[in-house]
Amino acid sequence: MELQRRSVAVTCAATCVLSCFLALGMSYPDPTQREKLIKLEASTRIGGHVELSPEEQLLDANLSKLMHEEMAREDFPPALHFFKARPLIRSSPIYGLLQKMPKGAALHVHDFAMVDAEWLVRNVTYRPHCYVCFTYDRSVRFYFSSWPPKPLPHCSPWALMEQLRAATANVTDLDNSLIANMTLWTQEDPEVVYPSQDVVWKSFEQAFMATWGLVTHAPVFRDYFHEGLSQLYRDNILYVEVRALLPETYELDGSTHTREWTMKAYQDTTRQFVEDNPDFFGARIIFTVNRGINRSLFTTAVQEAIKLQADFPETMAGFDLVGREDTGRPLWYFREALSLPAAQGSNLSYFFHAGETDLQGTEVDQNMMDALLFNTSRIGHGFALLRHPVAKRLSRMNGVPLEVCPISNQVLKLVKDLRNHPAAVLMSEGHPLVISSDDPSMFGSSGLSDDFYEAFVGFGGLSSNLGSLKELAMNSIRYSSLPPNLQEKAMALWQTKWNKFVTENL
Amino acid sequence: MELQRRSVAVTCAATCVLSCFLALGMSYPDPTQREKLIKLEASTRIGGHVELSPEEQLLDANLSKLMHEEMAREDFPPALHFFKARPLIRSSPIYGLLQKMPKGAALHVHDFAMVDAEWLVRNVTYRPHCYVCFTYDRSVRFYFSSWPPKPLPHCSPWALMEQLRAATANVTDLDNSLIANMTLWTQEDPEVVYPSQDVVWKSFEQAFMATWGLVTHAPVFRDYFHEGLSQLYRDNILYVEVRALLPETYELDGSTHTREWTMKAYQDTTRQFVEDNPDFFGARIIFTVNRGINRSLFTTAVQEAIKLQADFPETMAGFDLVGREDTGRPLWYFREALSLPAAQGSNLSYFFHAGETDLQGTEVDQNMMDALLFNTSRIGHGFALLRHPVAKRLSRMNGVPLEVCPISNQVLKLVKDLRNHPAAVLMSEGHPLVISSDDPSMFGSSGLSDDFYEAFVGFGGLSSNLGSLKELAMNSIRYSSLPPNLQEKAMALWQTKWNKFVTENL
Ligand SMILES: [Zn+2]
Ligand SMILES: [Zn+2]
Repeated sequence: MELQRRSVAVTCAATCVLSCFLALGMSYPDPTQREKLIKLEASTRIGGHVELSPEEQLLDANLSKLMHEEMAREDFPPALHFFKARPLIRSSPIYGLLQKMPKGAALHVHDFAMVDAEWLVRNVTYRPHCYVCFTYDRSVRFYFSSWPPKPLPHCSPWALMEQLRAATANVTDLDNSLIANMTLWTQEDPEVVYPSQDVVWKSFEQAFMATWGLVTHAPVFRDYFHEGLSQLYRDNILYVEVRALLPETYELDGSTHTREWTMKAYQDTTRQFVEDNPDFFGARIIFTVNRGINRSLFTTAVQEAIKLQADFPETMAGFDLVGREDTGRPLWYFREALSLPAAQGSNLSYFFHAGETDLQGTEVDQNMMDALLFNTSRIGHGFALLRHPVAKRLSRMNGVPLEVCPISNQVLKLVKDLRNHPAAVLMSEGHPLVISSDDPSMFGSSGLSDDFYEAFVGFGGLSSNLGSLKELAMNSIRYSSLPPNLQEKAMALWQTKWNKFVTENL
Repeated sequence: MELQRRSVAVTCAATCVLSCFLALGMSYPDPTQREKLIKLEASTRIGGHVELSPEEQLLDANLSKLMHEEMAREDFPPALHFFKARPLIRSSPIYGLLQKMPKGAALHVHDFAMVDAEWLVRNVTYRPHCYVCFTYDRSVRFYFSSWPPKPLPHCSPWALMEQLRAATANVTDLDNSLIANMTLWTQEDPEVVYPSQDVVWKSFEQAFMATWGLVTHAPVFRDYFHEGLSQLYRDNILYVEVRALLPETYELDGSTHTREWTMKAYQDTTRQFVEDNPDFFGARIIFTVNRGINRSLFTTAVQEAIKLQADFPETMAGFDLVGREDTGRPLWYFREALSLPAAQGSNLSYFFHAGETDLQGTEVDQNMMDALLFNTSRIGHGFALLRHPVAKRLSRMNGVPLEVCPISNQVLKLVKDLRNHPAAVLMSEGHPLVISSDDPSMFGSSGLSDDFYEAFVGFGGLSSNLGSLKELAMNSIRYSSLPPNLQEKAMALWQTKWNKFVTENL
């Protein structure tokens, strides 16, 4: 099994490194020995053991030249806030390559932050029967209905979008302001607009609420997911695991569909998409609930997850908790419910968000350790893992990878200069990890290319090379929830794409 | 020997941790086992093995209460730029305790950034024969002379300070502007004043030049160092190792003294200070040269260092290179000269600045590894060490500590939020390190208390405790250049002060 092999390799490398130290003896520095140590360090990195074909070596040499140019730029993009860096990133030749590169799988993306807000406004809000109201705290809410919906508290009266647009002098301005309500992206100085984690999380939650009435309308729900898959596919991603709330969806007459309907909609849309695009591998769902709920609701959710796992074994990947970790309940609070699947013999897997925090020594700061104790398959973020050496060692020795989302951590104000992101260290140590995008529509990023850019350039600088990219892409398949036989198929599909990419970009 | 013992202890702890992992087996989480892992992680930290007396436990409980209050503050000081955080820090009860706490030794402080600029202006520039000129790029230069000095290029004509003051309507404004020229400290938004590393390093070098003519005037030189020792002593520091350029000093008639005179002035001033304050332990000097010089000048400097080491064995601690690392020459460039002491049988020690950079994979980024290969006794900063797992392991296994200067790294723009400082990770791993202040006068910090606050609150949060502080203080003596017998004496002196501190602050 892949995970097993990986875990052994890591231990072996660590032992080798150790014995080399002991042999060193710290005498007068011998250039050959120095060279050996430098190589040893390079081989420790993610990608350090990847052997490159002659063609790959050519591409790698080209990449190295581009990286030297990138490091010489006056503004080094990974040091800047992504909102300021994006135009610089998008104009970089490295970004151009990363877009074309088969990046494997996106393993940490949320259901309603997959598709850019522009599509929601320019496509969805132009559909008939779309009502809007404006909240008193300057957000918006939408609802599709055959008749005027009941008024919302703290919100203006509902207006039909088509009537509102007809009465508006500048429709473009209106649409842009609606878009702005559904994303954190801003042209203004993000440090000024979002001075603190509290402020940025509040805006984040508001933007989420603004999209809610659009994306939970049953016909939109399917289209939205289809559009999400399309955007990933266009960014050369072949597989995705979606953290999904699986909400009830609603029709124009107010009738609603169950969670099973939602799950089936994911399954059907995916099957159709793969049929239309046979070189796309598919999608699986990680059912998520908000970490703010109480124990009783949580227990019900775990039981539903167990049932979904049994009913949709092909599509259901596992279970997770979402929402701001710092203000939510710690995993340990839910320990009884989290023990149910094992007790009931369910094969439900966990994919816990944990360590998306800079509060040190608090209850929430124990989430990574607890996620590992509950045998999580991966850790979402693990931003605080470096400060927990025991949890870190557990993650490594058991091959539990981190889902690293650089742009998300920066926009949500865990770190400013991405060279200081803990994953820069983890990459240098060859820790198991994958790169993902979390909530691309919220951050104005697209697919995985922006996050890959930050990881490739920001986490490694001149130490990064084609091997790093190759291992990151392969990790995303190796650490997916796919069973071994499907992993092999996905890896073969990726390898074909990769070979083509290398040949076409020499 | 202390260093030896330390190194063994570290290895042993690592092995223990490893076997505990292997015994774990990742079954259904048992609360007792979880508790054990949490304790294991806590014991891995700096201070994690320190046993506290009943009295110390009382103080620790009080500290823990204060830390909870500190974490609940709306603005968490370590997350802010020190220039904004200082008033918050100074008003914190934790800071009050840290000031009174015997902090041991300051092992990384530079000769001409020890004493606050206010003292330089309000004391030194009021002395007779003090000339000033204003450079065209808005800095100042000073010179003491019995007659008007030769004009400087790119500078206004020289004016006597007392005549200038007599002709100035608002002397306070003048003095404040002079002070502002000798420090990076500003009341304005530091992010705006210093938008980049280039800008802040330029100001840093300018401020350094502004003080040069004052502090190299022979009588001022002695007074300055005496004042520096006084300020450390008042902050409850008992010993200091000063990185010193050992410049020629000059008299009013333009005559100059040799490097030996300068060294002797340090030695004499220290002896006098210790005689007057018997509970101060002393000072030693690390001779430094700028890393921008060429190989031939550098070789001469190393030879001088070898001679100084032979002539002043009591005062001379070793040798180092200073100046901005990113734009300077890498250590490896000077490898031949750096090999001279060992080849000549000199016992000259190295205390290299290394890894004060965020350029990854460059030549300069190899400095930490090379410092270790040249058997450095400590590493100045080592900010980039985490990204170099092999160098990190060498540092740990050989007991080579980092001199961590949190405020310096923040003001010089390596990291914004100090919770993301790599030393937060190193503290959690029990890596050998000490806390120091680098250039307190430049940053507006005072003694070690501000940096200790950042390390205690910012690097550890609720995970920090009295044991952390105790080990940090003891580390500063354990990792000093003092020979074992003097280390023991210094430690005994510190222990007496520590016991008194604990008793008086229950
Ligand atoms: Zn997430
Ligand atoms: Zn320094």
